[in-house]
Amino acid sequence: MADSPTRILALAGSLRKNSVNRGLIRAAQESAPPDMVIDLFDLAGIPLFNQDLEREPPSAVVAFKAAIASADGVLIATPEYNFSVPGVLKNALDWASRPPREQPFVGKPVAIMSAGGRFGGVRAQLQLRQIGHGMGMLILSRPEVIVEKAVEKFDPNGNLTDTGVRDQVQGLVQALGAWAQRLA
Amino acid sequence: MADSPTRILALAGSLRKNSVNRGLIRAAQESAPPDMVIDLFDLAGIPLFNQDLEREPPSAVVAFKAAIASADGVLIATPEYNFSVPGVLKNALDWASRPPREQPFVGKPVAIMSAGGRFGGVRAQLQLRQIGHGMGMLILSRPEVIVEKAVEKFDPNGNLTDTGVRDQVQGLVQALGAWAQRLA
Amino acid sequence: MADSPTRILALAGSLRKNSVNRGLIRAAQESAPPDMVIDLFDLAGIPLFNQDLEREPPSAVVAFKAAIASADGVLIATPEYNFSVPGVLKNALDWASRPPREQPFVGKPVAIMSAGGRFGGVRAQLQLRQIGHGMGMLILSRPEVIVEKAVEKFDPNGNLTDTGVRDQVQGLVQALGAWAQRLA
Amino acid sequence: MADSPTRILALAGSLRKNSVNRGLIRAAQESAPPDMVIDLFDLAGIPLFNQDLEREPPSAVVAFKAAIASADGVLIATPEYNFSVPGVLKNALDWASRPPREQPFVGKPVAIMSAGGRFGGVRAQLQLRQIGHGMGMLILSRPEVIVEKAVEKFDPNGNLTDTGVRDQVQGLVQALGAWAQRLA
Repeated sequence: MADSPTRILALAGSLRKNSVNRGLIRAAQESAPPDMVIDLFDLAGIPLFNQDLEREPPSAVVAFKAAIASADGVLIATPEYNFSVPGVLKNALDWASRPPREQPFVGKPVAIMSAGGRFGGVRAQLQLRQIGHGMGMLILSRPEVIVEKAVEKFDPNGNLTDTGVRDQVQGLVQALGAWAQRLA
Repeated sequence: MADSPTRILALAGSLRKNSVNRGLIRAAQESAPPDMVIDLFDLAGIPLFNQDLEREPPSAVVAFKAAIASADGVLIATPEYNFSVPGVLKNALDWASRPPREQPFVGKPVAIMSAGGRFGGVRAQLQLRQIGHGMGMLILSRPEVIVEKAVEKFDPNGNLTDTGVRDQVQGLVQALGAWAQRLA
Repeated sequence: MADSPTRILALAGSLRKNSVNRGLIRAAQESAPPDMVIDLFDLAGIPLFNQDLEREPPSAVVAFKAAIASADGVLIATPEYNFSVPGVLKNALDWASRPPREQPFVGKPVAIMSAGGRFGGVRAQLQLRQIGHGMGMLILSRPEVIVEKAVEKFDPNGNLTDTGVRDQVQGLVQALGAWAQRLA
Repeated sequence: MADSPTRILALAGSLRKNSVNRGLIRAAQESAPPDMVIDLFDLAGIPLFNQDLEREPPSAVVAFKAAIASADGVLIATPEYNFSVPGVLKNALDWASRPPREQPFVGKPVAIMSAGGRFGGVRAQLQLRQIGHGMGMLILSRPEVIVEKAVEKFDPNGNLTDTGVRDQVQGLVQALGAWAQRLA
């Protein structure tokens, strides 16, 4: 047991190549402690949800649900679109909540971060907390990582350049590890 | 002017063939007054949003934005997935809010209805109101059409069979027409 | 009719003497056009709501409801306490929504502004929008006046010193006047 | 340690004598296991919050904060007023979040229940979850106790008469005890 690493599944709400939220995930991976592995699952392959198809889900959805089920915790980085999370992220979560094995998130330790413009995604995080509650996630309350004015803190490729934010990301990663251990 | 009908664009948050929310839209169409036309735009063809593609949007997105722009009002029927709107609906709205012509919903008269299980979609409606506010929609406050226990009020094909709900839908359609006129 | 001014009722969510949100109301009063009167109703005298007392409401509540009823529109300035509006503001609204004459806010044109710390009260505004929807308010969607880092924009007495914010307040006041006229 | 009972602080959002939410608290007390004590703190004595007074808080506020600090967990029963929690409840929470000792709720295990009309308070619970997140509460995600059509499930004195709901309350009390132990 002591040798088995904490496995964190990471999700990014943006599909954009140079997304700053993907950059937040990379920063998390770089700051993970030795006993933690953070793997990104790319949501680009998850098609639009259609309940008529849920009993024979596409292979990307099967893989997504398996990745959630086998993770000790989930780390979500999301932009804010129209005061909420991107449809892309919500659509993937919708698939995850449907049969078969429809509750992979129940009791799952989760942490959230966001980067964006004036308010850094704070509204998206709050809607995501409601969604996560609906799915039975156990979302870490603090610390909150909300990155305003992302354009000043990431390079054009979406790589995090701000050391203060990097410290916050590291703090969140550590808190998620501790949260997962506490709830195990 | 007097001869020109009020044009309402209808959106359904579910892609399921026998969706009760599609049934709500059909009921709205059946109860529309003679001077109103309600056209459904099917969201099945709208791909996942990716900001890298927004400058040359897919043709379905171009058509969607044109349909919004030319409508006098918008009527949305949405199921509730995980205490919020389906990712499918949010994804379409995300495309609509991006350049070029990124604000088709600003000042647009909108009405919302929902059908679902125990709470009839009330949580999805509230998240949608926040999203709509973010997009500048002018969403009708009352009447609220929230259909609990939809399984008892629709047939297996998703056709509305409950006359009380049918009256509510008609009331909402009329209120949307008046709202559009008031804001014109 | 042309000579009758637009009467705006103003509410501040904070009871603090040097409150920056009271300062926002004063800035609104100073920027009101000649045909608009903005009167502050002080919530300090409204006791805790108790349904056992609602049929014979305290005189401050009677006065509050009369002030709402006679106003052409309402302007609310609120701080954010714990990601929501102050209990003081919500408590007054609770009284207003109870019998007798329990719906003074139905169809009432309303505008919201807030001043605060890092996020300027954006979360409080969103919860207030939901509350207002529950009460039937017609809340202006845009412009949004959200004043971050208030300590840099007000003097120690809560007087607004920032000219950019002053312009925003003036824009909101004008938009509320136009909104009240449009909905009249 | 084994002999020390779990101490739960209970709060009711309504001051009404025959409140059904007070009835929910009584039902919780009656179903508490032998090693748990549930004490109600009455919010009627907490005055309107005014930041000018926070440094020398009224004695009721001092007692309230001490009760929170010494509790192993908190159980809140709230009605829904205008799609949110009562101002009375929010006002008490506002006092609790201010200096001195301004963070009695950080890391505190909390459970929520509500009784009301058509939707049983589901909207109030969601706003309360956001408020609680703002205060650092660790709010239990499941089970959810939401009592629709309360008039059919309580007697005129606000006593719970429905055995199904009684079982749900008992389930929530047990889950809160386990949650408090898990987080201890």
